[in-house]
Amino acid sequence: MKAKNSDYIRIFDTTLRDGEQTPGVSLTMDDKIEIARQLSKLGVDVIEAGSPMSSEGEKRVVKEIAKAGLETEICGLARATKSDIDDAIDCDVDVVHVFIPTSPVQMKYAVNMTPEQVLSATFDHVDYVKKHGLKCEFSPMDATRSEPKFLKKVCQAAEKAKADMLNIPDTVGIMIPKTMGKIIEDVRTAVKTPISIHCHDDFGMAVANSLAAVEAGATQVHSTINGLGERAGNASLEEVVMALHMIYKLKTGINSRLLYSTSRMVATLTGVFVQANKAIVGENAFAHESGIHTRGVTVKPLTFEPIKPELVGRTRKLVAGKLAGTRGIKAELEEVGIHPTDDQMKEIVQRVKELGDKGKMVTDADLLALTSAVMGEVIAEEKIVDLCDMAVVTGIKVIPTASVRLVLDGKEYIAAETGVGPVDSVLKAIQKLTSNLAKIRLNEYRLEAITGGSNAVAEVVIKVEDEHGHIVSARAAREDIVMASVEAMINGINKCLIKQRKLGKK
Amino acid sequence: MKAKNSDYIRIFDTTLRDGEQTPGVSLTMDDKIEIARQLSKLGVDVIEAGSPMSSEGEKRVVKEIAKAGLETEICGLARATKSDIDDAIDCDVDVVHVFIPTSPVQMKYAVNMTPEQVLSATFDHVDYVKKHGLKCEFSPMDATRSEPKFLKKVCQAAEKAKADMLNIPDTVGIMIPKTMGKIIEDVRTAVKTPISIHCHDDFGMAVANSLAAVEAGATQVHSTINGLGERAGNASLEEVVMALHMIYKLKTGINSRLLYSTSRMVATLTGVFVQANKAIVGENAFAHESGIHTRGVTVKPLTFEPIKPELVGRTRKLVAGKLAGTRGIKAELEEVGIHPTDDQMKEIVQRVKELGDKGKMVTDADLLALTSAVMGEVIAEEKIVDLCDMAVVTGIKVIPTASVRLVLDGKEYIAAETGVGPVDSVLKAIQKLTSNLAKIRLNEYRLEAITGGSNAVAEVVIKVEDEHGHIVSARAAREDIVMASVEAMINGINKCLIKQRKLGKK
Repeated sequence: MKAKNSDYIRIFDTTLRDGEQTPGVSLTMDDKIEIARQLSKLGVDVIEAGSPMSSEGEKRVVKEIAKAGLETEICGLARATKSDIDDAIDCDVDVVHVFIPTSPVQMKYAVNMTPEQVLSATFDHVDYVKKHGLKCEFSPMDATRSEPKFLKKVCQAAEKAKADMLNIPDTVGIMIPKTMGKIIEDVRTAVKTPISIHCHDDFGMAVANSLAAVEAGATQVHSTINGLGERAGNASLEEVVMALHMIYKLKTGINSRLLYSTSRMVATLTGVFVQANKAIVGENAFAHESGIHTRGVTVKPLTFEPIKPELVGRTRKLVAGKLAGTRGIKAELEEVGIHPTDDQMKEIVQRVKELGDKGKMVTDADLLALTSAVMGEVIAEEKIVDLCDMAVVTGIKVIPTASVRLVLDGKEYIAAETGVGPVDSVLKAIQKLTSNLAKIRLNEYRLEAITGGSNAVAEVVIKVEDEHGHIVSARAAREDIVMASVEAMINGINKCLIKQRKLGKK
Repeated sequence: MKAKNSDYIRIFDTTLRDGEQTPGVSLTMDDKIEIARQLSKLGVDVIEAGSPMSSEGEKRVVKEIAKAGLETEICGLARATKSDIDDAIDCDVDVVHVFIPTSPVQMKYAVNMTPEQVLSATFDHVDYVKKHGLKCEFSPMDATRSEPKFLKKVCQAAEKAKADMLNIPDTVGIMIPKTMGKIIEDVRTAVKTPISIHCHDDFGMAVANSLAAVEAGATQVHSTINGLGERAGNASLEEVVMALHMIYKLKTGINSRLLYSTSRMVATLTGVFVQANKAIVGENAFAHESGIHTRGVTVKPLTFEPIKPELVGRTRKLVAGKLAGTRGIKAELEEVGIHPTDDQMKEIVQRVKELGDKGKMVTDADLLALTSAVMGEVIAEEKIVDLCDMAVVTGIKVIPTASVRLVLDGKEYIAAETGVGPVDSVLKAIQKLTSNLAKIRLNEYRLEAITGGSNAVAEVVIKVEDEHGHIVSARAAREDIVMASVEAMINGINKCLIKQRKLGKK
């Protein structure tokens, strides 16, 4: 495979193969091609595009990705059988990834083969791929539960058949960094072929184990966007790459600034969302609430931030809340041009804490409302858009339809729109009217997960963008999801217009 | 602190302190007390109940938890100031957790103190706690970015003042297991006081780093349920504990069978949900879809499972999907009493794969529908509840109202209901009608997070429970959130009724 400097670690992306094995995930051909293009832009070295043997549709997808003209190498998975390998070859992939179990439990119960059979199947099938002129990556599945001597023998068989890469899978995620490092060192005494690592996260250690393998001499890491994959998933690409860059000072082909947008695309297309407290790409990874943290971060980001958020395509976020300090809240208010006096700030902070103690998440709108109350009428005047009336209807054989009456700069306007659902229709109607004032478009609609009864509070966060590229976010929380969406949208448009006018005055 | 065997690792839970610093999380007093009781049942050694200095409400909460009569030690956080410590003492906690920054960047920018001032403040405030007869845990904040010699000096100062525990925080999550182990070994050369570890997950290595610290001699681990906490969060308790038990063969006080229910409670109360591919407690942690995995797991679970799901209070889940094998799909069908012939199974698997190739998630309802088509009319008859008409309206000054027409066992019924929002009203109307057939109540409503435009697909998962305690889940995905909710509800009720009647026949 490509010759690179000794400080270069290859990233083998298996989002479209192991990632798609995430229970509940099914991607269409278009989805998979879109993700493949993004992965190529992101700079991964290999894209494992799928398991061609699993279905006719899957085979078609791998074929399409292989002929999409991407610079990245395209790989297809195959069990150690000629028919699986033929399926992969038919797809015109660059690399065939052949695997066979090598642990006692899997040899017996997953494929019912003796060690001798596994050994000769390894040689035969790697050889079969190579004789077809393709690259071959070989994986002894469940390597970390295999008998060490046997594991080395299998690796030697694959090397003898001229495998280009030996990948060591921790199939059930039971390694710790120390033991992982030892296995890699051990395998390296037996073979000269480059070593790759493939870790699962069953005990939350996939990333650390992958890095320990790199320390021990592995030169390629298997990973997936957002850590998707079987069960608890694989090592997450964004965490592995940022640790390699920032902690190990090693190089990869990854443009880290595209990590966040790639994560978002994959989350949206797979429907598997990332938890708020996920490293690098989680909503809170660069958010700060508590007083001592927000104070530190506003003075000098390095105090409470391991890396600059911009490095991974993100921005810092300061959140008001009951544990928030003055600095964080002040920074949030200044963002919309509000400058309270010190006494007013004290009172505002007090009220934020009271609201938080009641278990309320303090939204931007809450913060503005209580700031407004503390500072008198100063902010109340600035409501440029106000909602007067609204009605929404949906049902079976009913086109979701909404009508709204808004006051814009003191004048009343009415509009109606249809949409794919009640929320879509009402947000379209609002945008239709406000487009008279300024070109503000809905950039992102996000509904936080709801668990509870059907009367649980829905929290909606929206981002709107004006024609100058200013992005403003707003949120609202209501039991009625349609009302929450409308309130968030109106808040966002108001914040955006206020920002525009403040900046216009300067 | 409690004398335990040398193979016992203390679990210090900071879900209610660092976990509550998760941006956007605010818990009420009742929430926090409920979580504290659960943590005590779970068996943690210490509960850090909060930061008493942060607000009056927070102080009240810590006080309530301290007097709730839990067996677990209760701890309150305090900066190295007398007033913070007094606030904690006022709460009647067992332990005061005193912290002060010790890294150059944080001493300068977060508290503006010289190293000498930090050193004497350390002694003075640990001493102040001890002189009040309380236990004291001391943390040199940002220890991992502190000058090693200075870090040891600070630890010695705390030891001299008789601190009971020295906690080493990796405040910005920049360690790797190797470096973490070294710091702990280094600190241990300077002091005899027991060492605790507190890791953040900014590069996804909090768990591995915590375990490396234990390897190096730490006897207590700070962790949070679901890995909540500042930014990317803390080491997740469930992962740390299961790794200690299963990989290191060490003991903790944790009853692992309560891990899943505790995780669910915390997710629901904080509103921070766990991603599907999260280790131990994620929805997919014990789910299997691909053919080779489901085959292996049904023959012998050990083939593709690191631990028994029952150990953490869970059950295995086999999922139909385009990568699924015959075994997984068969197991799912058998669960609802359907037993296809081998030929029928082949056809069913084929159709599941076709559906998956189109990018469709194969829901329980899809599987039943296509099985029904393959097997003839056997299952089609079993649609007990069917939706004919539905209309929903909401708006400003409009009480959210829904009307539905259902067919129940062949007869038509109509009902209308109001609710707090459109979804609530329509689900109430449905339940009103189906209550004639059986007492089925909505146990849980869960809407997956939506990110995208206002026309993104909403995925709803509901659980319904009948009077015999059978719980059935169903899901639906639609662009119209109201329709998705209705479809999921109808699917769930149908599955529940079918199950009831199958069981009734036996």
